[in-house]
Amino acid sequence: MATTPAELSKAVTELLEATGKDRPALGLVPTMGALHSGHAALAQAARADNDVVVASIFVNPLQFDDPADLARYPRTLDADLDLLGQAGVDLVFAPSEATMYPGGLPLVRVSSGGLGTRFEGASRPGHFDGVLTVVAKLFHCVQPAVPAEFRAYFGQKDAQQVALIRRMAADLNFPVQIYPVPIVRAADGLAESSRNVFLSEADRRSALVLSRALGRLQENASSRRPLDLPSAAALVSATPGVELDYFEVVDPLTLEPVPAGVQDVLSGPALALVAARVGGIRLIDNAELHG
Amino acid sequence: MATTPAELSKAVTELLEATGKDRPALGLVPTMGALHSGHAALAQAARADNDVVVASIFVNPLQFDDPADLARYPRTLDADLDLLGQAGVDLVFAPSEATMYPGGLPLVRVSSGGLGTRFEGASRPGHFDGVLTVVAKLFHCVQPAVPAEFRAYFGQKDAQQVALIRRMAADLNFPVQIYPVPIVRAADGLAESSRNVFLSEADRRSALVLSRALGRLQENASSRRPLDLPSAAALVSATPGVELDYFEVVDPLTLEPVPAGVQDVLSGPALALVAARVGGIRLIDNAELHG
Repeated sequence: MATTPAELSKAVTELLEATGKDRPALGLVPTMGALHSGHAALAQAARADNDVVVASIFVNPLQFDDPADLARYPRTLDADLDLLGQAGVDLVFAPSEATMYPGGLPLVRVSSGGLGTRFEGASRPGHFDGVLTVVAKLFHCVQPAVPAEFRAYFGQKDAQQVALIRRMAADLNFPVQIYPVPIVRAADGLAESSRNVFLSEADRRSALVLSRALGRLQENASSRRPLDLPSAAALVSATPGVELDYFEVVDPLTLEPVPAGVQDVLSGPALALVAARVGGIRLIDNAELHG
Repeated sequence: MATTPAELSKAVTELLEATGKDRPALGLVPTMGALHSGHAALAQAARADNDVVVASIFVNPLQFDDPADLARYPRTLDADLDLLGQAGVDLVFAPSEATMYPGGLPLVRVSSGGLGTRFEGASRPGHFDGVLTVVAKLFHCVQPAVPAEFRAYFGQKDAQQVALIRRMAADLNFPVQIYPVPIVRAADGLAESSRNVFLSEADRRSALVLSRALGRLQENASSRRPLDLPSAAALVSATPGVELDYFEVVDPLTLEPVPAGVQDVLSGPALALVAARVGGIRLIDNAELHG
């Protein structure tokens, strides 16, 4: 485990050189710890594609607008290291807050623009600026100093985060390829999330309406029926204990809303995004729709 | 000359490998063209320190808040290439606007925070966000893909820009060292600037009050007399055709103003910053003060 950028950089170079390849592939899996099977899928995808796999564990204060949310975010380092080891990760970067933000919180940051203030950004001001800022820092810390392909893996569960990180990499010419990894669902259909541990058994049953409503949209799209987003949204809203925040159908890359008229006859792939509070816990989910 | 990031990256790698060194040094001199002796000093400093020197020429639309200012910014590519060649620059990167901003202006940008809204930022909203965004892009485009020291050179004339780029490199962990290069002055004392060509002969004489006022502060500081910033500011304001914008004494790294009381007995290095419009042309200058 590396805890400073200097240790990390040295270890990454050694691992890449030890491959004996002219241009080995390096995969990065950034996480905030509290790892579950969704993260294992990220690490496994990176393992399958790359010669060297690095994961990071850092609970980034900059992306929490609510100090209470930051304080209760689960920290499970030993279990996280076990999971990453089992997934075949070569090296874990687990810096302290003082290492990542030595002068306190940064003055210069990455700004997520208009896309960062919608959907999840609307209820969490500054969240995506904090995400992009720490991801930019991690990219620079892990950036290979010897010839290598550099790839970073992010879960499609956080669809808006994936869209923004792709935009950041393109807009700022980061020399890294962004790989989204499909959502992992529990047997009951609930999308895996570090926040699921906070759900009571009853809340968890209620939360299943999210994946069920998304599934209904997918069925409508694939059978070429009108999507009927209002019915799907009503299904969620009608569930006791579930408070719907948003339910939208958007372009998968830009996250621009697909106009209601166009939703009746999807002419290409679209993405359905849903967010709700269940028993006080904010949950998000999404599904690709293929017309 | 390279005009695309791919051409640039290939050429940089070839130049670094041709040095035959394990870890050659690469110096980058970012410019907007319209080069003068101040830029030549940047290129010469980079040449003296490094095995390979790259200069970029790109008039960055994102850092102009005034389209008229962008339109009349001087473009002198042939003369610029001559100057850089004479200074010993190995490679010039001169991309088009479409190459740097292929999807139009970027959605995700670098944000300069509070330091970017003071001094020059106060009269040019968004200017420093535009500067930091293009510099981040250039760093990523030039970033060596083989082992190398990576350094970037910026003129101290733009003191706030230097301070912000240093903060960006530190706050976002860019793997590059920032080297400021001292101001170059004409024989009459005027700090070299691409905008000086717009000054009439009379305006140019008026503009000399800026360096004269800074010189007075330097003398006061080095003779351990009170700085008397109000007198220096009054000297500028009293000059016909000169409209003072700001005149401040600040910490050289943070650009936080030094309180008036502390200015009487400077306990360490400080920086005097001045900005004025002369004949409608905005000029800036600065000087280090040593108490």
